[in-house]
Amino acid sequence: MPSPHEKTPMTALRDCIDRLEPDEAGKKMYGLIERLFPICRSITGAGVRQTLDIVGEHLDLARSEVATGTAVFDWTIPNEWTIRDAWIKDASGRKIVDFQHSNLHVVSYSTPVHGRFTLAELKPHLHSDPENPEWTPYRTSYYNANWGFCLPHQQLLALPEGEYEVCVDADLAPGSLSYAECFIPGQSDQEILLFAHTCHPSLCNDNLSGISVLVALGEYLRQCRLKWSYRLVFAPATIGSITWLSRNEARLSQIQGGLVVSVAGDAGGVTYKRSRRHDSLIDRASASVLTQAGFADRIVDFSPWGYDERQFCSPGINLPMGRLTRSPHGAYREYHSSADNLQLVHPEHLQHTLKTVLQILNVIETNGRYLNRFPKGEPQLGRRGLYQMMGGYTRISELQNALLWVLNGSDGEQSLLDIAEKSRLDYSLLQHAADLAMRADLLTLLD
Amino acid sequence: MPSPHEKTPMTALRDCIDRLEPDEAGKKMYGLIERLFPICRSITGAGVRQTLDIVGEHLDLARSEVATGTAVFDWTIPNEWTIRDAWIKDASGRKIVDFQHSNLHVVSYSTPVHGRFTLAELKPHLHSDPENPEWTPYRTSYYNANWGFCLPHQQLLALPEGEYEVCVDADLAPGSLSYAECFIPGQSDQEILLFAHTCHPSLCNDNLSGISVLVALGEYLRQCRLKWSYRLVFAPATIGSITWLSRNEARLSQIQGGLVVSVAGDAGGVTYKRSRRHDSLIDRASASVLTQAGFADRIVDFSPWGYDERQFCSPGINLPMGRLTRSPHGAYREYHSSADNLQLVHPEHLQHTLKTVLQILNVIETNGRYLNRFPKGEPQLGRRGLYQMMGGYTRISELQNALLWVLNGSDGEQSLLDIAEKSRLDYSLLQHAADLAMRADLLTLLD
Amino acid sequence: MPSPHEKTPMTALRDCIDRLEPDEAGKKMYGLIERLFPICRSITGAGVRQTLDIVGEHLDLARSEVATGTAVFDWTIPNEWTIRDAWIKDASGRKIVDFQHSNLHVVSYSTPVHGRFTLAELKPHLHSDPENPEWTPYRTSYYNANWGFCLPHQQLLALPEGEYEVCVDADLAPGSLSYAECFIPGQSDQEILLFAHTCHPSLCNDNLSGISVLVALGEYLRQCRLKWSYRLVFAPATIGSITWLSRNEARLSQIQGGLVVSVAGDAGGVTYKRSRRHDSLIDRASASVLTQAGFADRIVDFSPWGYDERQFCSPGINLPMGRLTRSPHGAYREYHSSADNLQLVHPEHLQHTLKTVLQILNVIETNGRYLNRFPKGEPQLGRRGLYQMMGGYTRISELQNALLWVLNGSDGEQSLLDIAEKSRLDYSLLQHAADLAMRADLLTLLD
Repeated sequence: MPSPHEKTPMTALRDCIDRLEPDEAGKKMYGLIERLFPICRSITGAGVRQTLDIVGEHLDLARSEVATGTAVFDWTIPNEWTIRDAWIKDASGRKIVDFQHSNLHVVSYSTPVHGRFTLAELKPHLHSDPENPEWTPYRTSYYNANWGFCLPHQQLLALPEGEYEVCVDADLAPGSLSYAECFIPGQSDQEILLFAHTCHPSLCNDNLSGISVLVALGEYLRQCRLKWSYRLVFAPATIGSITWLSRNEARLSQIQGGLVVSVAGDAGGVTYKRSRRHDSLIDRASASVLTQAGFADRIVDFSPWGYDERQFCSPGINLPMGRLTRSPHGAYREYHSSADNLQLVHPEHLQHTLKTVLQILNVIETNGRYLNRFPKGEPQLGRRGLYQMMGGYTRISELQNALLWVLNGSDGEQSLLDIAEKSRLDYSLLQHAADLAMRADLLTLLD
Repeated sequence: MPSPHEKTPMTALRDCIDRLEPDEAGKKMYGLIERLFPICRSITGAGVRQTLDIVGEHLDLARSEVATGTAVFDWTIPNEWTIRDAWIKDASGRKIVDFQHSNLHVVSYSTPVHGRFTLAELKPHLHSDPENPEWTPYRTSYYNANWGFCLPHQQLLALPEGEYEVCVDADLAPGSLSYAECFIPGQSDQEILLFAHTCHPSLCNDNLSGISVLVALGEYLRQCRLKWSYRLVFAPATIGSITWLSRNEARLSQIQGGLVVSVAGDAGGVTYKRSRRHDSLIDRASASVLTQAGFADRIVDFSPWGYDERQFCSPGINLPMGRLTRSPHGAYREYHSSADNLQLVHPEHLQHTLKTVLQILNVIETNGRYLNRFPKGEPQLGRRGLYQMMGGYTRISELQNALLWVLNGSDGEQSLLDIAEKSRLDYSLLQHAADLAMRADLLTLLD
Repeated sequence: MPSPHEKTPMTALRDCIDRLEPDEAGKKMYGLIERLFPICRSITGAGVRQTLDIVGEHLDLARSEVATGTAVFDWTIPNEWTIRDAWIKDASGRKIVDFQHSNLHVVSYSTPVHGRFTLAELKPHLHSDPENPEWTPYRTSYYNANWGFCLPHQQLLALPEGEYEVCVDADLAPGSLSYAECFIPGQSDQEILLFAHTCHPSLCNDNLSGISVLVALGEYLRQCRLKWSYRLVFAPATIGSITWLSRNEARLSQIQGGLVVSVAGDAGGVTYKRSRRHDSLIDRASASVLTQAGFADRIVDFSPWGYDERQFCSPGINLPMGRLTRSPHGAYREYHSSADNLQLVHPEHLQHTLKTVLQILNVIETNGRYLNRFPKGEPQLGRRGLYQMMGGYTRISELQNALLWVLNGSDGEQSLLDIAEKSRLDYSLLQHAADLAMRADLLTLLD
């Protein structure tokens, strides 16, 4: 992964893909996750700002602070949450649950509290996951003033009767919601939008993997000669995307498509969730890339439950935004628990996700219609050096086959992606064949 | 099942479904079948009129008599058949086949005969089913003057040579074809048509089950606040539906959809046969209900062989009329035999069929388009008490999920049934979610 | 198979199918293959002309010679190749590879050569197939001046070091490309085009089987009362179809559809490759016939690699031309080798291919829309003798079922082929039912 400020010659996106060194980008993404992991993020607060500071070391960011109380569509920016410490002490004064040990132990947006409680009084404020009794779950109470602690279910069961001292040293006070965006200009002012949520505390796959893939992506895109402009948005889930949408409503018509990226580092294969439009260009591009990679059965229809595609694909917004993850939202055992940690994500999976996103964007960047200049019968490829010299073989090469598909399909109506769908061939193979045909003056580019 | 003349508050159809007591309606339907079972019905005659008299004890019926010789489309009302007795005596004078024992023994529409025949002369008039040698088959000869007897194949094989005395004490003489209809007015004068055939003698599943489900249905519909008007027609198969159609041709454009109901009491699951239009509202409603109930593989395409959907879906009529049965037409072993008796049908299956019809009609009654009043991003459901207080869980409730679907889908284009099809959720669950959203002022009803 | 010059009454195509004697046509086709087998064909030259002479004994042919150097679309007619002899002698003077033994031994279009070569010098000119080491492969070098020999891989491996004498006694000189067509007029001057390539030397399934099926087809078609005119073209692959297309461009709009026929004699079932239009009449007719014959899984989509459908379905031509073979192009082990010989093809398979083509053409000839004259309800079939006398049976006959489908479907919109697709019934069964209904004045023919 090149340094962000190094000047490199402008290359096509596809050449970036070819030059991806095995594991190198993956290791760099994993390193960023390691650095972000300890920070306690929530939908507002210092942890988010600290996270955006680190992202800003890699990408040029425009940062926004939206004041508590601001109306954003049907919602209102809440108070900012500042958390300093939180613990439960047993009768002997020993800390048995400690925020300093893991920020998952405190329910996000807990109100301040300090006092003594019997176990019975305390229990309604304790959260655990009986299905995974060794792990601490992740819980939030953003819009309902309450305090609480999360702990392993086996620990909860073992708590003796008696008095406990409880402390949440936190503030809920007017402040702001923080988000950032990185804009990478292309030839067109029409934009591709990429979104990662930033509101999860020490969770790796859900959230940090998405942030790190977007950072790496931004570093690659910046070096490329781009047709579309790209906007990478880092914001808290739900309230963050709603805020961004409400403040950018007039510009939404410029968005040609995009992806919500998260859960990008686990060992599952990649999953694409279609936009509400179902067959927009991003949907077709993603389906083509995943199908070629053997993940056709992991292309799923839109549904209104999940990550921020819920907002981008709400009926009054309806952007052509799909979602790229590895395991789907919620569909891995470690989801929203202390087991979603640095062991769950791996450099090679992060690298694979990044490559998949680049392949999808390559389709978005380059798809177009060509016109076969010799549409009556096949042009004589042999005399142009594009066909095997000796005839009679049972098979032709993959590239020759792709060339025949490109020539046959390029009737002025069908785009390269149309031909990829019809031929079930890899888009980049067809792209290579189209390049050869262009160089041989067999095709004219229409778009 | 409430008494037909009791005044009850007008309720929504769906509340009827919720209030269906386990087995109660089923037992009442079964009781009606028991009462109708002994009567010898045919396409005309006293048995049909007696059957309609009994139906009339439950429903307000308009009855029609159409005189022999009347032209109905390409057909002519035949002579009326009156059967008093029929038997075969063996050489010793003992009745070996006796209409008084089962009306299936005489071929329906047999011409009168009284005489002595050798076994060889008699045999062409004897009908049996070698595949089910213990059962008496049901046979008819409506439009070809002939007489005949039906008997178990094993009995036929055992008949000794010798002379037999045969008697069919019957008339074929000018009279009329009888049918009846029950009209239940709704807010609209557009109608939903429900049809049961009435021409089968002592057969339970094929015919009596359909009559009894329609009777129970009429009793429920009458208590409901209805959007559409309902017309329940009780008529003989083929000639009866043709007669009804020919006499109501001018009004057919008022029919918004409907069902032919028969074979409603056996242990098979429910089967829906699509109308010739394939995707009309009744087709989509029925497919949605059956799919949710686990019967997706029992939704079959239209074909021109079967019950009265043959007539309702003839090309010059082409009504959006599907067919609801349990086992499909002809696809159960006891079909048209003495084994289609009171043991084959059960109250619980009748009740299940009734409930299925009510669920389908609930869709027809209530489907409409809503408009999400907060279409940009999701509305904040939590502050309206429509969302869980605590966040972070892997799953949300079925109802919350349905609410998200209703809100996401209600773009002014899609109806609730569209949303049901897209989400693969139960229509009534979505309906419940839509009610909650209406009460919270999140939706406007468009239709 | 009748003699070509015998005058027979003009019959419908379908009666030809019914009258196909088991094996008779197959044996005659096989006999033609035996006669054509020894001839050394290529894309030009005496062998092609000799082949067309023999075809001309069966069919009235219009023959064309197109001079070397003529531009045909993007191509140019090459020099004509005359091959007299070719051999390799070992150090002892013994012929170890001999054109007189099999014309596959010389690479088609080999340039003349006579000289002595070391094994190392010779090897680049020797071609074999390691996957099938006992067979001589078939290779060509049409547009790249070169000479070469083909031999079994096991022989190649066993060649000792030493000097070899090599001779290709051949000319490449201005001449012409030869093709022929047989025109069979029908009522319409709109044409159905049938194409077989003629450029392969001693290969039976690939090429000779297609020629012989087309010859037999022409002999049958000539006896029939035809709606469309038929044109049977015998020409070399690729350059031949390109030549024909370039010289007939103005008339292409008259072509309603057609088939490329080849690989017609092996033991595999029949395979249909759709035209580039995917759902043209020939595509739907072929799909219906193959589906009824149990070959639904051998209906494949168009792709631009294969036989002359590559040219007929190039984007600027785009004729509705499918391809009928048995094993698909290249998908049998003996393809383009000395094992594609008289043992690979069998009379019964040739006959089956011929019958399949006739069945497809029967659909093309007869498909049309009928109008049910009694579209309101069913017409009373019983009084017209078209329905069983006795009612109540579980099943009706296939023909009665087909009759119901024809009557129900004949709404003036749907053709018989539409009804075949919807009902999944055999087209010819529906055709028979339609004939019965026409005779009973139940239908009017619209087209």
